[in-house]
Amino acid sequence: MKPFVSLALALLVVASAPVWAAQDPLPSWNDTAPRKALVAFVERVTKAGSPDFVAAPERIAVFDNDGTLWAEQPVYVQILFVVDRIKALATAHPEWKSKEPFASLLKGDMAEVAASGEAGVAALMAATHSGMTTEEFTRIVTDWLATAKHPTTGKRFTDMVYQPMLEVLAYFRANGFKTFIVSGGGVEFMRPWTERVYGIPPEQVVGTTGGLKFELRAGTPVLLKTPALILNDDKDGKPIGIQRHIGRRPIAAFGNSDGDHQMLQWTMAGGGARFALIVHHDDATREWAYDRTSHVGKLDKAWDEAVAKGWTVVSMKDDWKTIFPK
Amino acid sequence: MKPFVSLALALLVVASAPVWAAQDPLPSWNDTAPRKALVAFVERVTKAGSPDFVAAPERIAVFDNDGTLWAEQPVYVQILFVVDRIKALATAHPEWKSKEPFASLLKGDMAEVAASGEAGVAALMAATHSGMTTEEFTRIVTDWLATAKHPTTGKRFTDMVYQPMLEVLAYFRANGFKTFIVSGGGVEFMRPWTERVYGIPPEQVVGTTGGLKFELRAGTPVLLKTPALILNDDKDGKPIGIQRHIGRRPIAAFGNSDGDHQMLQWTMAGGGARFALIVHHDDATREWAYDRTSHVGKLDKAWDEAVAKGWTVVSMKDDWKTIFPK
Repeated sequence: MKPFVSLALALLVVASAPVWAAQDPLPSWNDTAPRKALVAFVERVTKAGSPDFVAAPERIAVFDNDGTLWAEQPVYVQILFVVDRIKALATAHPEWKSKEPFASLLKGDMAEVAASGEAGVAALMAATHSGMTTEEFTRIVTDWLATAKHPTTGKRFTDMVYQPMLEVLAYFRANGFKTFIVSGGGVEFMRPWTERVYGIPPEQVVGTTGGLKFELRAGTPVLLKTPALILNDDKDGKPIGIQRHIGRRPIAAFGNSDGDHQMLQWTMAGGGARFALIVHHDDATREWAYDRTSHVGKLDKAWDEAVAKGWTVVSMKDDWKTIFPK
Repeated sequence: MKPFVSLALALLVVASAPVWAAQDPLPSWNDTAPRKALVAFVERVTKAGSPDFVAAPERIAVFDNDGTLWAEQPVYVQILFVVDRIKALATAHPEWKSKEPFASLLKGDMAEVAASGEAGVAALMAATHSGMTTEEFTRIVTDWLATAKHPTTGKRFTDMVYQPMLEVLAYFRANGFKTFIVSGGGVEFMRPWTERVYGIPPEQVVGTTGGLKFELRAGTPVLLKTPALILNDDKDGKPIGIQRHIGRRPIAAFGNSDGDHQMLQWTMAGGGARFALIVHHDDATREWAYDRTSHVGKLDKAWDEAVAKGWTVVSMKDDWKTIFPK
């Protein structure tokens, strides 16, 4: 058979193959309300001629990271990074033995570290997130993630991403969406691995942002990380981060805590078809169960608004067949 | 003929049609050194198996706007916008008649406005670029651009974009590049029209960035523009803006002035194949001629480095067949 005829036959087979076309894009989702809502929304905005059709460039979907795409218990991954970095840097900083909050952290007294408040946290962040070039920091994060393990599961942190959400990311992208992370986590802490793990390139990651300083070192330009805070990408900082980086309002937003509340409000207040989803951590067996009174990922006011307005709320226990990738 | 057979024949024709494949992507460029350098670079980084091959996600190209993609003489377009806005708002601000630099601006005494210095400019920027929501500002810019005309050519500003650069943008995108604007101009001033005019979506526009404040107005969230300066995206602010927004180093950069110098340095300091291009305004007949001593778009130190390092310098007079779209 001539090559072009076999190509034509192959095309014909594909075009007439409903089984292939109907391959389940969300195999880890039970056939409950959240899955139905996800599929109905995507079909509404992508169907040509539909009154709710949205042109591809406007199909912007934003995803919180901690607690929405990967696990955030018992504490944010980035905090564990800070602890490990302080320990690793301690030999070069003998003065930390008698300087708070470093001394308490090195003794493992996390209650005392917490008592140091915002100033203490800022000192720890400055010591671990500034003073190096952006390329040095990328290497530090990459090396740490390659070896660090979760304190209770023993897994790599990048293996503790949510399989059902990986499927949502791929499903949305297959339907012409551009997917962005909008996270309270540090933008430079996420960008080294989001493309590999989530398929989200660095330029589509919005996060808490520190200062940068341009310098020529023996004629070679570098960007030095400084302790300045340029964006606290949490709560009302999230719609601000969205506007600064994306410049248009998303039509879909995914979160899990009150830190995502304003991002969800901002997304839902636009015209046309909209979608908001909250991941509710209610599965103490397979993951963790926490909401209104949690010290991490507190979900209270955003949950009330989700219920009042009919936003989609996912029960990890009831709506997800699996939590983590196999 | 059955549809799939005609499709196959069509595919065969396309595959064996060198004329079609060789359609000139840069018809407004003379066959001089800059054009040859552009094509050679694109072929080097896109040819599979080439030692300089760059994977598509890393094909990031950044473009200055004023003087690189559109005209910037006799003054930046955004300054003309400020002047028109002050005049339009003056009836609602009777106090401006006796308040500098507003009074001088309203009398047309631009020398006196310039004499008001940075504080004066900041007052004019605050009065015209803050106090409204982001959506209101988008409407103001869009309405202004639809009617405002260039003071000497009488053209719409969006018709004073450079045809050869539109071809470069399309040529790079056709070769898997993501094209970004990195401009000293206001990001919210550019985003309303860059997608239509340049094919560059809002999320790929980096620019000077003002403050934002999230507010609920009768339950509806808005983002209010504030006078704060978050990023002065000029000179060393350009590599900082690139890192904040894109998070990886471009492999190609296009500029026209010393304001682009650090962006060009930062781009060229990475590993692998690199490309830097400077547009030299030397065509007083078809556009403007200015460089080392110009008050707008001064090109001095960046030009010296371009010559010393063999970066591509475009002579608008000699290298471009046409300047503006017909």
